[in-house]
Amino acid sequence: MPRYKLIMEYAGTRYSGWQIQKNARTVQGELHHALQEATRGRQFETYGSGRTDAGVHALGQVVHVDLPTALPPDTLVARINDHLPHDINVLSAERMPPRFHARHSAVARRYRYQISRRRSAFEKNYVWWVREPLNLARMREAASHLVGFADFRSFTDDDPEEKSTHVLLQELTLTEQDHLILVHVTGSHFLWKMVRRIVGVLVGAGKGDLTPGDVGRLLQKESPLTAQLTAPAAGLFLERVEY
Amino acid sequence: MPRYKLIMEYAGTRYSGWQIQKNARTVQGELHHALQEATRGRQFETYGSGRTDAGVHALGQVVHVDLPTALPPDTLVARINDHLPHDINVLSAERMPPRFHARHSAVARRYRYQISRRRSAFEKNYVWWVREPLNLARMREAASHLVGFADFRSFTDDDPEEKSTHVLLQELTLTEQDHLILVHVTGSHFLWKMVRRIVGVLVGAGKGDLTPGDVGRLLQKESPLTAQLTAPAAGLFLERVEY
Repeated sequence: MPRYKLIMEYAGTRYSGWQIQKNARTVQGELHHALQEATRGRQFETYGSGRTDAGVHALGQVVHVDLPTALPPDTLVARINDHLPHDINVLSAERMPPRFHARHSAVARRYRYQISRRRSAFEKNYVWWVREPLNLARMREAASHLVGFADFRSFTDDDPEEKSTHVLLQELTLTEQDHLILVHVTGSHFLWKMVRRIVGVLVGAGKGDLTPGDVGRLLQKESPLTAQLTAPAAGLFLERVEY
Repeated sequence: MPRYKLIMEYAGTRYSGWQIQKNARTVQGELHHALQEATRGRQFETYGSGRTDAGVHALGQVVHVDLPTALPPDTLVARINDHLPHDINVLSAERMPPRFHARHSAVARRYRYQISRRRSAFEKNYVWWVREPLNLARMREAASHLVGFADFRSFTDDDPEEKSTHVLLQELTLTEQDHLILVHVTGSHFLWKMVRRIVGVLVGAGKGDLTPGDVGRLLQKESPLTAQLTAPAAGLFLERVEY
């Protein structure tokens, strides 16, 4: 059973997230369906690097799957894409050794979050439009308090599958690109809703609702504030997974 | 009655084109509705620089409208946008003399057409994905035969509103940007379906179905070929109108 690594992009708008569910359209469900069509009815187990929530997008989600027979990677990509809807796309396939695991072998994930400073006719599903003025210097100062190894318990909801809430946050940067503020965040792994709560807190600091010091203190004790400030799903992209 | 020039962007995907119609959702219809809401029920005549077909987008459609009272441009923009759907957006407003007419005063229109060389999860409504290899040099040579002042009758369907089929085509360029080929075309005015038929014919030349010389000869006599090759609406954007 040859193992393949797939790199996928998708627009999450029309899906109830990554993970397969009964009675809901999900990205993994569509991938299973396409794999079955491409291989004439076989059943598959696929493993993603991690879940993405409803409305969240991916530029480089990584999946592994064991196929009954070996196929040239380009043939595999074309066959799967022929059966995928227009907003899910396999970018590449690669043969991997059987010890490769899309989730367990990953050493870092990088996300991108898009904040927009103006109304746009083309971006609703891909940005968080913040009408209020944002002080970028204050957002960057707030971000500096979150980089490093820390307990991010107050940035997530209870998730029975998650063993530890300690995360190594390697990168948290803000860059301006035209009317967008791009937040890039890289970490060993991410807790449920963690990226959206980090972005929400940074926007709170940018508006002046929180001081950068307040943001640092959120790591020390649990607070309902992070949940209240959760950024919407639309602006979030899983950008890259590193192995 | 102060006259205003509005510059608008819209994603045409959900609309039956620009022009107002009974029993169909159009961009002009949505603009009328927003103007009525913003001015408490008045009726308006709006004049666009030209129509766009169903599924065609705009980055800089120009409209003029006479308002009952003068308003600061930024206030006007904000009030209209508060009542527009998310995929239609007024970018700017400007007070103009009464002799300004969005259609009659225009001296040139520029369109952009996006051809994609690969499948993408994010672009379905904004590109024409051409799977076959395209020879860009041949497309550019074909384009050179269409620049200038000529009778573009064979690039349009009969339109009773159109008096002349002679058009001055000032620019027809092809540039590569990542996996996209961008076609830019500027002309004095455009006939119905003309841009999409020009692009269709260039893609025909790029695939090798037509020689560049064939493309030039299409100007000389009518042929069913241009209609057969019409490029899909999704890739087309009205980019700019010049006065």
